[in-house]
Amino acid sequence: MVQATSLPRNDTGIKAVIDILKQRFDERLQTGDSIREQHGHTTTYIVNQKPDAVVFPTSTAEVAEIVKTCATHDVPVIAFGTGTSLEGHVNAPAGGISVDMSQMNQILAVHAEDLDVVVQPGVTREQLNTYLRDQGLFFPIDPGANASLGGMTATRASGTNAVRYGTMKDNVIALEVVMADGEVIRTAQRAKKSSAGYDLTRLMVGSEGTLGLITEITLRLQGIPEAISSARCSFSTVDAACRAVMMTIQYGIPVARIELLDTLSVGAANNYSKLDLPDTPLLLLEFHGSDAGVAEQAETFGAIAEEFGGTDFAATTSTEERNKLWQARHDMYWATHQLRPGAKGISTDVCVPISRLAEAVSGAQDKAAELGLLAPIVGHVGDGNFHALPLIDMDNPDEVAAVEAFVAWLNEYAISLDGTCTGEHGIGQGKKPYLEMELGATTRYMAAVKAALDPQNILNPGKIVTRT
Amino acid sequence: MVQATSLPRNDTGIKAVIDILKQRFDERLQTGDSIREQHGHTTTYIVNQKPDAVVFPTSTAEVAEIVKTCATHDVPVIAFGTGTSLEGHVNAPAGGISVDMSQMNQILAVHAEDLDVVVQPGVTREQLNTYLRDQGLFFPIDPGANASLGGMTATRASGTNAVRYGTMKDNVIALEVVMADGEVIRTAQRAKKSSAGYDLTRLMVGSEGTLGLITEITLRLQGIPEAISSARCSFSTVDAACRAVMMTIQYGIPVARIELLDTLSVGAANNYSKLDLPDTPLLLLEFHGSDAGVAEQAETFGAIAEEFGGTDFAATTSTEERNKLWQARHDMYWATHQLRPGAKGISTDVCVPISRLAEAVSGAQDKAAELGLLAPIVGHVGDGNFHALPLIDMDNPDEVAAVEAFVAWLNEYAISLDGTCTGEHGIGQGKKPYLEMELGATTRYMAAVKAALDPQNILNPGKIVTRT
Repeated sequence: MVQATSLPRNDTGIKAVIDILKQRFDERLQTGDSIREQHGHTTTYIVNQKPDAVVFPTSTAEVAEIVKTCATHDVPVIAFGTGTSLEGHVNAPAGGISVDMSQMNQILAVHAEDLDVVVQPGVTREQLNTYLRDQGLFFPIDPGANASLGGMTATRASGTNAVRYGTMKDNVIALEVVMADGEVIRTAQRAKKSSAGYDLTRLMVGSEGTLGLITEITLRLQGIPEAISSARCSFSTVDAACRAVMMTIQYGIPVARIELLDTLSVGAANNYSKLDLPDTPLLLLEFHGSDAGVAEQAETFGAIAEEFGGTDFAATTSTEERNKLWQARHDMYWATHQLRPGAKGISTDVCVPISRLAEAVSGAQDKAAELGLLAPIVGHVGDGNFHALPLIDMDNPDEVAAVEAFVAWLNEYAISLDGTCTGEHGIGQGKKPYLEMELGATTRYMAAVKAALDPQNILNPGKIVTRT
Repeated sequence: MVQATSLPRNDTGIKAVIDILKQRFDERLQTGDSIREQHGHTTTYIVNQKPDAVVFPTSTAEVAEIVKTCATHDVPVIAFGTGTSLEGHVNAPAGGISVDMSQMNQILAVHAEDLDVVVQPGVTREQLNTYLRDQGLFFPIDPGANASLGGMTATRASGTNAVRYGTMKDNVIALEVVMADGEVIRTAQRAKKSSAGYDLTRLMVGSEGTLGLITEITLRLQGIPEAISSARCSFSTVDAACRAVMMTIQYGIPVARIELLDTLSVGAANNYSKLDLPDTPLLLLEFHGSDAGVAEQAETFGAIAEEFGGTDFAATTSTEERNKLWQARHDMYWATHQLRPGAKGISTDVCVPISRLAEAVSGAQDKAAELGLLAPIVGHVGDGNFHALPLIDMDNPDEVAAVEAFVAWLNEYAISLDGTCTGEHGIGQGKKPYLEMELGATTRYMAAVKAALDPQNILNPGKIVTRT
């Protein structure tokens, strides 16, 4: 486990806040060890730093009350969704109160005519899509995990559909936010576009709970397409697969998803999901549109794939076949872990301009081999975003050292290609040094914004930027 | 003319800065009365407030030098693009230095494979699209005027294509910005997506020169579609036309443009552009896609239009016919002015959820009639955004009072419908009271961000928010 820096604790304040909140929230405030550990836990390699208590509000007014109480006593407040973040986002390096949003899980309004929905932050994306299905609508952002929409907003999540539908930044219309002083604000009206002052909506999206606590989200929806088809195609090298992706994007095919699995990942999927895909790099695609439209897209992609030596091209409109393939893609995290039972997968998340994709993926493969790491790669390659997942024995210091060298090298390499150290996972604790490397002096102005909106530094302290 | 509030001047500082910059920039610093008046002028009804000097930098380093000099002497700095903003954005209520970006007009790099381009802020959108045409690429945002891309970024511009391609917020990948202390930062790398910290890119987009001076812009590009077709259809009422728009959007037709002209505007277009459109409300559309795709879109729209009593539906793939229609749309500002020669058009810019569009447009027509105003309406109705343009005699106090009542009523009405007082024109000086009305306490946090990034309040002071 990688040690995370601890910050000074305000034990007196924390005790006072817990006493007050316990009176007010009774059983909805928990201080047991295991629940606190669970709320410091993310799918991460960073050591767990427990909050001192976990509180379960059910309304914006309660969240505001919690924040005000914490502000009065100078105590950290850490918003918690489903705990699926990857970079120590919900750790409590100075202790404090974890605000678990799971009971704020109401879908408040569906405006079908406007293609938008208003939800509380604890609603999960699967819950929302199940709710919407009867109305012919869906919310496209799919980071894999059944994350909460509050957490997805806070980390600027994206995932497989982003190549067509964008990321959370493109799909949040407005937010209700409890600010550090307990004031409740709305960042925008529900109109589809606006030029009304600073874009506080986008400032909050991706702020990881460090600028405010999101208590209501207005999201853009999409009509469920008339037709959905999927396709897969195998390539002899990741380089050829990446080049086919680059051409597909440049050609303007509006692919809904275009995912890469390298040979290791294909093997893992075959094994875990009982598939018989050829044992070479694979592209997995989905097309949305009219019947004629999806047929045309698949055909055009097929022609491009052929140019790059693609084989075993198969397109289907069968829901069953499609679901089987995409379920396998969703299960990749677990499937790849079976390549080395007992090992811990260390997730990386670089994103590069698509012209640099082939060299970035190939470079990552070569570096992993050089360091003796087993590191399957999957990627949302239509956006130039990919994840190498080195599988290591956390008890073996040599392997830990190798993976640390790999992560550092990969982030630096992506940055050198005009890419980013994080396409969609965010900064949290784990990526802070790389944010500094990537954006330099810019982080000083991020810190200034943080200081302006959270002068006491009580909102998820120790994440994204270091207060000066 | 509506009076704008003046702010206290720092005459000593201004004199010192002009002396220093004159030495440094020689003929590229101008203090003549007419050039200063031109740089305080926007297409606006707000009284002109001249800057004290206009300087023409040619590089980021020069912009940084200007800002540092102004910071040292506590003097306002106002970035200037082409002066086509509408709400007193470039007025100088405390005097100071106008930084004219017209000589920073280089296209620095086209990354065709990545579908992006890096430009200086003085490049105009027409200049960019002329440059890109041979490469089969285009930049879609089209606010009508041949604005500079720096100005479009600073005001979060959008226009006719936004329904498909989004606004400037969706099409800026990264910015280089000179901050209030003269530091030059980059807000993001060139990767297509990122979750690397606070979204300073989006914070700068729409900040109207109040948080920094934009010196370089990385923009997303689109491939020129294989096929473009246009269509028009007449309706007996704006209500019927708006309902057809609502259905088109809900149906998910990926229209590239869908514009409304009310009867007054159609008459003006017939007259000014020598057309013979039926004398009733009109929708004007453009479709982008494959040959089959645009045919399918036009056909689907035709069927929807028929449901709402649409007549004279005509679709065409002829470039000449299409250009004629869209040129007429672009010329509407001038065409409508000919409805009442000598009158001044007062542009409004509300945007509402599309389910409220029909009532908002009809309500605006009724209110204009009630106040005795001639107010043609055009709109980017696919986004719920429309402009009523009352044409008044500025020397007639009754008419000025009537238009002020109309503007106030319209903004309040849009806000009451969960819409915004400004879909795309921005706040500047003119909309400040309405921003307050629309977002209330939220503006306090905007002011806090402004104070954090521009503690001396030298960047375009008096715009968007009032410093407390």
